[in-house]
Amino acid sequence: MVYGNLPNSGTGVMMTRNDTTGAKTPVVSFREGGQGEEVVSGSHSTLYLSQFRGRMPDAAAEVVKVGREQETLGEDMQDMEFTVEKGVVWWLQKRVGKRTARAALNIAVAMVKEGLITKEEAVLRITYEQILQLLAAQVDPDAEVEIIGKAAASSLGAVSGQLVFNSKDSIALAAQGGKPILTRVETSTDDYPGMAPASGILTQEGSEGCHAAIVCKSEGKVGLFSINGTVDEANEQVILDDGTVLKKGDWVTLDANNKVLINGEAPLVPPKGLTPAANTLLSWADKFAKLKVRTNADTPAQMEYARKLGAKGVGLKRIEHWIQEDAELRQLFKEYILLKPPQAKERRLLAIRRKLKRNIKDELRIMKGHPVVIRLLDPPIHEFLPRTEAIYEQLLSGRRTKRDLLDRVKHFAESNAMLGHRGVRLGVTNPELTRMQAAAIYEAAAELIKEENIRVKPEIMIPVVSLRSEIDDQQPLIEEEYRKVLDQFGITPRRLKGIVGTMIELPAAALAADQLAEVARFFSFGTNDLTQTTYGLSRDDVAKLLALYRERGMIDRDPFESLMPEVVTLMEMAIKLGRGVNPDLEIGICGEHGRDPESIKIAHRIGLDYVSPSREGVAVARLVAGQAALEDMLAAEG
Amino acid sequence: MVYGNLPNSGTGVMMTRNDTTGAKTPVVSFREGGQGEEVVSGSHSTLYLSQFRGRMPDAAAEVVKVGREQETLGEDMQDMEFTVEKGVVWWLQKRVGKRTARAALNIAVAMVKEGLITKEEAVLRITYEQILQLLAAQVDPDAEVEIIGKAAASSLGAVSGQLVFNSKDSIALAAQGGKPILTRVETSTDDYPGMAPASGILTQEGSEGCHAAIVCKSEGKVGLFSINGTVDEANEQVILDDGTVLKKGDWVTLDANNKVLINGEAPLVPPKGLTPAANTLLSWADKFAKLKVRTNADTPAQMEYARKLGAKGVGLKRIEHWIQEDAELRQLFKEYILLKPPQAKERRLLAIRRKLKRNIKDELRIMKGHPVVIRLLDPPIHEFLPRTEAIYEQLLSGRRTKRDLLDRVKHFAESNAMLGHRGVRLGVTNPELTRMQAAAIYEAAAELIKEENIRVKPEIMIPVVSLRSEIDDQQPLIEEEYRKVLDQFGITPRRLKGIVGTMIELPAAALAADQLAEVARFFSFGTNDLTQTTYGLSRDDVAKLLALYRERGMIDRDPFESLMPEVVTLMEMAIKLGRGVNPDLEIGICGEHGRDPESIKIAHRIGLDYVSPSREGVAVARLVAGQAALEDMLAAEG
Repeated sequence: MVYGNLPNSGTGVMMTRNDTTGAKTPVVSFREGGQGEEVVSGSHSTLYLSQFRGRMPDAAAEVVKVGREQETLGEDMQDMEFTVEKGVVWWLQKRVGKRTARAALNIAVAMVKEGLITKEEAVLRITYEQILQLLAAQVDPDAEVEIIGKAAASSLGAVSGQLVFNSKDSIALAAQGGKPILTRVETSTDDYPGMAPASGILTQEGSEGCHAAIVCKSEGKVGLFSINGTVDEANEQVILDDGTVLKKGDWVTLDANNKVLINGEAPLVPPKGLTPAANTLLSWADKFAKLKVRTNADTPAQMEYARKLGAKGVGLKRIEHWIQEDAELRQLFKEYILLKPPQAKERRLLAIRRKLKRNIKDELRIMKGHPVVIRLLDPPIHEFLPRTEAIYEQLLSGRRTKRDLLDRVKHFAESNAMLGHRGVRLGVTNPELTRMQAAAIYEAAAELIKEENIRVKPEIMIPVVSLRSEIDDQQPLIEEEYRKVLDQFGITPRRLKGIVGTMIELPAAALAADQLAEVARFFSFGTNDLTQTTYGLSRDDVAKLLALYRERGMIDRDPFESLMPEVVTLMEMAIKLGRGVNPDLEIGICGEHGRDPESIKIAHRIGLDYVSPSREGVAVARLVAGQAALEDMLAAEG
Repeated sequence: MVYGNLPNSGTGVMMTRNDTTGAKTPVVSFREGGQGEEVVSGSHSTLYLSQFRGRMPDAAAEVVKVGREQETLGEDMQDMEFTVEKGVVWWLQKRVGKRTARAALNIAVAMVKEGLITKEEAVLRITYEQILQLLAAQVDPDAEVEIIGKAAASSLGAVSGQLVFNSKDSIALAAQGGKPILTRVETSTDDYPGMAPASGILTQEGSEGCHAAIVCKSEGKVGLFSINGTVDEANEQVILDDGTVLKKGDWVTLDANNKVLINGEAPLVPPKGLTPAANTLLSWADKFAKLKVRTNADTPAQMEYARKLGAKGVGLKRIEHWIQEDAELRQLFKEYILLKPPQAKERRLLAIRRKLKRNIKDELRIMKGHPVVIRLLDPPIHEFLPRTEAIYEQLLSGRRTKRDLLDRVKHFAESNAMLGHRGVRLGVTNPELTRMQAAAIYEAAAELIKEENIRVKPEIMIPVVSLRSEIDDQQPLIEEEYRKVLDQFGITPRRLKGIVGTMIELPAAALAADQLAEVARFFSFGTNDLTQTTYGLSRDDVAKLLALYRERGMIDRDPFESLMPEVVTLMEMAIKLGRGVNPDLEIGICGEHGRDPESIKIAHRIGLDYVSPSREGVAVARLVAGQAALEDMLAAEG
């Protein structure tokens, strides 16, 4: 037994590096004359390293020296406890030290430079959660905020909004453009209608695996659970343990990064992007990885961001998203559908084509050299039209809406939009749509080549294919537009390639992949739709059901987040059939499963060429792709 | 050269048996003093066999004798031409004679009894079209009808209705409960909205493979194409070649059996059922067949008819069809859904259970001894509620409908009903529904055993399963109700078995069939839904698209009529996985593909235990199942 409560004594803890920043300076917390738990418990004031040095220079030097040695021995930052008894240092315990994401990356990269660990070890040491932490929205660290509660959280991020206490109010507030924070004792399937439109979820009960956490995670919402207080649903208030009362309509901020509840609307800062160390580490991961990483992005801004995160091309650009985000385009498209005279239709298409060309040009410029896979229009026609319900409501409210519009809109209604007149089927019935898109894409590419002399690699992807005959029907239309552009601009097929591939998003496509590979230059698994059809599950309709299944342990993952085994079976069959016909067939995933670590490892294992997640998923995928390859190497060695 | 235009001469044709009835009496048509084509062309009056005998007894005897010899040689009924020159018979040619379906069956069975052909040959000689012809609705043969046109036809049957010349009128007339005959020069995808509600289709152009024919065949509609006349769409009239003019609203009868157009509303007679010869022949087919034939039937009347056609059990009884057909039940079910107080819900369920028990009792009695597979409720809840559109229309028309109903109905709306909250998912969220159905089924069985001492074999089938955990969730509920009934009635598990199986109607179920086989006692392929999910095709939405694909040769069959290869691949995988776990697993098809000859042959080839079509499909399946087994034997022999 040694004593710190003697003269020239004390007790302290040391992180061998800075656990917040990762800097190589040890962080010491020393309590002179202190004993036992007094430092760790944080209940007493302590000395920093410089102050410790000032009081006991020899002991401090000894502590730092031993710390450095132990770090070298342990090949990682250490968290050590010691006692000084009459100037002599006694060590109590050590363990690998906890650190922030930023510190973890800085330390890993620094230790490689110091020769302490290898690049392989560095890559394996970082977790995808740490990458996500770097990239999550957060409360401005420089802002003064009033923390009023602590809680559990299942995912990262921060969000502000107004408290509501039932689904009805959540739906109503969201409909007005508000930001509801749905607040319940705990959530169940019945609350789902209000959870879906909520900006955040706050509950009295539950932990990281509770119903609310499952929904938050699968829908990318911020949630805090087990708040230190009581939710009084009947009186629409939260009573925190310290007596603070929050009422319906009060603004709060959920900070899931720090697992705290903040009073009022705290200032949020957008994700900072990758730190230099993260960039370095991910570049090492890239070198090990077999799997490439592209991105799903629909706008130039999204592509810029993905490039910064290291995306090597675009795996999926959805023309319909770009249309839906622009009021003028939406109107043009609606008129193209509803107007009858052929010339009027043609004029609308021409206007859309011009705008599309400009958009594609901006995107190809950002991704220069890298492939940009552009998917032909995918959704059913009615998604571009007003909903019948909305028209009925207008008719009921006496506003001037023509009854005639109702009939025209109803004409396009479908009872199962997912399984209806969409994807390639649209192109088969409306070849002018396929031609318009192909012309815009190739013109954009040709103009960039001619005007800016940059390399471009657009690739056209046909969605919802199940039959080879569908590709055979569409390819000549695309080819013809392609040839026209080559002629018009005097460009060789070497400089602008006419590459057409297909989505594999229906079980039938996977099972007929040998036939499709005869005519498609690449495959891209639409794992979201493939999951929907394989399981007969509409993501829009069954989210609440899935949450119930997970709660009851009937399913062990969110099928729309992490690949299900039967979907993987279909993918493996498709790869085998497709590469049997064309060994060089390029195959990737363009579904959001490409951001899920388990699914990325599967993609690596079954031999895909790339995954293509959106936003921060790009960085996650780069890391995990590198780790998957390293794990293979380790398994082969041992 | 011989001459029939001499004294004591003439020319004639003979069928060696009666080609209408199949009776063993030759049918002769002789023209005394006639020559060449005069008999065959039908343009001159001729003598019957008895008259021919009266005029030239020796020649007639010779003709009949040679006919009999040639029939024995040819092992089939012969159609022979001869000339008599001065009393001497000269034979010109012979061929196998054409005959009606009824005659074909009578002749085949008679020839077996005469030792002329084997039972195997007889079964192979009959076509499924002949079986269908026996069972198709037809114009009363005893009625006097005015035939006004000739045409092509692609399917059997007869229907009366009123001429309309565009989709709008077809939809409007059908909505009023009328029977539109959509009449067009030719049809295209644009006409589909009017074809779907039409009772029949009549076109000026097109043959058996035209767009109209494809739609008629796949939707079981009567159609006549290439009518001998002109369809004047603009003036809404048909001008037949003989000058007859038919106007919009005129009644006509399309007789596809005889490929004629009849003026006015001809009396139709329901299908006659199987003739004694057909029964005999199908009983032979049964002996050869490996594949058993059950039936899809939802009411006692349908089961009675299927029993007459030889169904050995029920492969699919849909509880929801039975509910939807009864106004009182529909109302009870609607109230069960929409009422909030638990007791009110319970009372409705109890009333449904009592009615269901009575219905099941009637059906088990009909099928006594044979298995009756009863599927638990399959459709999404909203199918039992008024449609939102209907409520909006009522609100608009100012009728007293509560706005509140709209909200309650909207609560159950789904964007993809096919992929939504249905099948086993209903049972998972509403266990009381599963219990209610199981109780009704086992009580019905127990009462029959106790009160009527008959053998019964109800089997419960769970729909829309994709995970083993779903069966694990439902089976204990069913088991508990089963045990309760055994106890209550004092019945042993030997007399009333508790058999629970699963549909295989999602690709995921086929791919996880090994896991499902661990807990399911039988598999039944729901080939309709399996096709919908495998191809991402909603039958309701894409019928018009499929017709276009077929017209363009992009697909070679109607996927909802005849199994697609990728669906067969999934079925084969499921069989292999399922029987790998349980070699005795009983596996059948309960989709309507079970009436398609090609699909029945596939079912035989991949080793299914049974198919289960509805109505006349039962007889078709019995024939084709026998033929498939015989073809195997022949292939094995040589």
